[in-house]
Amino acid sequence: MKDAHNTELTTRNSFMREAIALSHEGMNKGAGGPFGAVVVRNGEIIARGYNRVLETNDPTCHAEVDAIRKASAFLGHFHLEDCELYTSCEPCPMCLGAVYWSRIKTVYYGNTKADAAAIGFDDQFIYEELDRPIRDRSLSMERLLGDEAAAVFNDWAKQANKKLY
Amino acid sequence: MKDAHNTELTTRNSFMREAIALSHEGMNKGAGGPFGAVVVRNGEIIARGYNRVLETNDPTCHAEVDAIRKASAFLGHFHLEDCELYTSCEPCPMCLGAVYWSRIKTVYYGNTKADAAAIGFDDQFIYEELDRPIRDRSLSMERLLGDEAAAVFNDWAKQANKKLY
Repeated sequence: MKDAHNTELTTRNSFMREAIALSHEGMNKGAGGPFGAVVVRNGEIIARGYNRVLETNDPTCHAEVDAIRKASAFLGHFHLEDCELYTSCEPCPMCLGAVYWSRIKTVYYGNTKADAAAIGFDDQFIYEELDRPIRDRSLSMERLLGDEAAAVFNDWAKQANKKLY
Repeated sequence: MKDAHNTELTTRNSFMREAIALSHEGMNKGAGGPFGAVVVRNGEIIARGYNRVLETNDPTCHAEVDAIRKASAFLGHFHLEDCELYTSCEPCPMCLGAVYWSRIKTVYYGNTKADAAAIGFDDQFIYEELDRPIRDRSLSMERLLGDEAAAVFNDWAKQANKKLY
């Protein structure tokens, strides 16, 4: 049993080392910050990502989102419930949200959100903002036309053949 | 003053109606759930989005992410600090994270996250999960190789010409 456990740990470490190597590669290319990620399915890497915010001018192109998009494209499905995510840093709220929507069940991470904050990234701040009631956030949020918006939700609820995700 | 206020409100309502119309359009096309969004800059819509999760097989392609990506591509920059987001539903944690990363300062929304939960979407659940300590989440999260991951963060911190975002 101990050997099996050690083999599993060695395998997991090898996937994490790949995520860390990607964090270095993306940083060195100037693609974005030092963040890398891989998606693993049945013991194989099916998608590799790194932060490409600077390269693509897409503020959502974090390593985890990049890897999840590629894994979904590879599998041709928006659910990745039999996959694991290895990321060189604890996901920010955006990426953690993406993990939940993708139905990934297990995440391995290297650096923490506190480590990310220490080198100038806003992960910790955004976690704190999401915890606050809307009125206490630094972001201004205002509700408009709730009744008109609700009418579309009602139409959705009435659809017989809708596909939930 | 009252007239000016009313004109502003009429303008804001017109942007929200466009977001709501997009939520209907995307739903009717089968692109995804009933969610639409627009990004506005200097009183003009610069990007339109709707949920395309089913159409693209991309679990991150929510209306807000779709609109933010398009606005960033249009402006050629990953920061949208002079833009507003109008979305037919209160953003989920993933999309709210994307708003913070994009530096958008103002969000108008129609339906609430409770309304989304009532028609079967997980927004509320994900908010609750993010509030919990890692050990109490339904998602399994484990730290691996923190020291090796930290080495890349240290390299980043030492870069003289790094671009923060």
